[in-house]
Amino acid sequence: MTELKTGGQHGYLRIATEEAFMPEEAIDLYAEVLDGPDPDPGFVSLWGFYLRSTDERSRFIRESLIDLGARRLADMDARGIDRQIIALTAPGTQILRTDKAVALARLANDQLGEACLAHPDRFTGMAACAPQDGAEAAKEIERAVHKYGMRAVIINSHINGEYLDNPKFYPVLEAAEALDIPIYIHPNTPSRDMIRPMLDVGLDGAIFGFGVETGMHALRLITTGTIDRFPKLQIIIGHMGEALPYWMYRLDYMHRAGVKAGRYEAMKPLKKEKISDYLRENYTITNSGMAWEAAIKFAQENLGIDRVMYAMDYPYQCPAEEVAALDAMHMSAADKKKFFQTNAERVFKLDGQGAG
Amino acid sequence: MTELKTGGQHGYLRIATEEAFMPEEAIDLYAEVLDGPDPDPGFVSLWGFYLRSTDERSRFIRESLIDLGARRLADMDARGIDRQIIALTAPGTQILRTDKAVALARLANDQLGEACLAHPDRFTGMAACAPQDGAEAAKEIERAVHKYGMRAVIINSHINGEYLDNPKFYPVLEAAEALDIPIYIHPNTPSRDMIRPMLDVGLDGAIFGFGVETGMHALRLITTGTIDRFPKLQIIIGHMGEALPYWMYRLDYMHRAGVKAGRYEAMKPLKKEKISDYLRENYTITNSGMAWEAAIKFAQENLGIDRVMYAMDYPYQCPAEEVAALDAMHMSAADKKKFFQTNAERVFKLDGQGAG
Repeated sequence: MTELKTGGQHGYLRIATEEAFMPEEAIDLYAEVLDGPDPDPGFVSLWGFYLRSTDERSRFIRESLIDLGARRLADMDARGIDRQIIALTAPGTQILRTDKAVALARLANDQLGEACLAHPDRFTGMAACAPQDGAEAAKEIERAVHKYGMRAVIINSHINGEYLDNPKFYPVLEAAEALDIPIYIHPNTPSRDMIRPMLDVGLDGAIFGFGVETGMHALRLITTGTIDRFPKLQIIIGHMGEALPYWMYRLDYMHRAGVKAGRYEAMKPLKKEKISDYLRENYTITNSGMAWEAAIKFAQENLGIDRVMYAMDYPYQCPAEEVAALDAMHMSAADKKKFFQTNAERVFKLDGQGAG
Repeated sequence: MTELKTGGQHGYLRIATEEAFMPEEAIDLYAEVLDGPDPDPGFVSLWGFYLRSTDERSRFIRESLIDLGARRLADMDARGIDRQIIALTAPGTQILRTDKAVALARLANDQLGEACLAHPDRFTGMAACAPQDGAEAAKEIERAVHKYGMRAVIINSHINGEYLDNPKFYPVLEAAEALDIPIYIHPNTPSRDMIRPMLDVGLDGAIFGFGVETGMHALRLITTGTIDRFPKLQIIIGHMGEALPYWMYRLDYMHRAGVKAGRYEAMKPLKKEKISDYLRENYTITNSGMAWEAAIKFAQENLGIDRVMYAMDYPYQCPAEEVAALDAMHMSAADKKKFFQTNAERVFKLDGQGAG
């Protein structure tokens, strides 16, 4: 087992690609939503818990999320993480009223951007935006890319129960395509139209609901023809692809059958032959939350060795043992380097950020 | 590639374990529900389509479902299927008013039971029931087992938005445990509390919603402590385990974290250490809808070689090419025989039915 040191002496840099932060100011904004009328039930479940719980895990998460300096760097050093690709944590701006969402996106980008400029060898940012206002979101993404060198857009899944395939969000997709940066669709709790049976038994969060919500979001972009409309779009999804790689055979079969039978107005023939073609050509996945060799290899073999990247999911899930277990995977040195380092360098265009 | 002949000359019998039928009488019952007030939206999507569509696939499915004789046997012969394990198709009784549900369960068991008695070397039945009336359901399961030798119970996932962990359905679980037969949880469209975002874009059916609904149902039985209450219960789920095997690492991690933090009233410590312990000891999966070597091997390796069975999903998905592809899997003869034959013989206790 390699030691958990940064610097790549063991053959690769460890670039963690789905790492979270939030401005301290978001805490008050979130508290306001929680105390407001009819708050989103998934948000109440997630942030009602993390903001107010006194258990050790919640405290650690709160304190780590708002740090973009010494504490985060020390945690990275202790776990052998050379670089974090950092994004505004879920639900980010997307639970807020539009004006507040726009302001939080700007604030988040300024805080994260300054930290990235201060630690260019350790941090890379993803641009936050308020998709509730598409035109404004596109401008903010452009600002974050040009001013701070951000290398992706973070979308924390549904936007008040709507998805990126809705034309109102096309400006976000256009901006990502024009700037040639990927969109990371990060989980959120399912919307109020979908959450009830999961919420009733505590399955709405990372244990199950996150994957349902985010897998569906990623799949909608394909089946609705949205990727056909923005064919250069590159999407990243975590948690081993939110199970979509495991479902590929059935997705292909049932999409073909559904289209042929003309069952749904909303499901038309696509430009590419199969759903899995889109997954292999427009999607990259990370192993956030799944430090599991078997699933990683399954995805590498079936999605493509260039399509699977390392992620830690800091601070939600960051035991050093998981890094050690992944170091110890039975995998060629070349493939392991792709997983931990070079796929991320290519997808996020990290040349010149000291990570190459 | 072996020829698609029955009889096992190629080294194993092909026992297809998730095969569907329905009494012709159900068509009128379903039409009545579709024409009634405020029908379940998933039912409208599924059976509103299959009952009324004139496309080739729908016609084939309707005609094949109601046949328990020459047509079905010919289809089995053409595809090299030695035995079908047959169940009342989704949503079966579960969409009906209780009195009609009770009557349909009895009718379905009589029709299927007679067919099994007429073709003991080709057909094995699963018992239908109307879980809406737990006590009556338990009696009907017992009748079907004793009168017709049925070897499992079919539950077509949610029962008007409720799940088998609800104590009102305990009589069904008690009956299965007492009779020492497994419960097959077959997909249904998600309930009205969950379906909307999937339905809007045609993802509510087999392409995605089925897996969400059924995976959640199977998982609830574990996390709510229901399997702890009925520890001898054996559950079967199709479609490569509705993605739960692929999620095992995250299920274990996040269940442990959630229980430790005391986040949910409904999520308490369980008797076994991990969610995956339950999956490996109380669940068996089938590959219905997923004639895909990669996923089958992943499940065999991670769930257990004894825990993965062959299924065709007749008549919904039954191309002969899929049988041929599975015959050609790179797998030891012993493992292939477990997959196609002996796991099913053990799980359904087929000794003495001419399948051994």
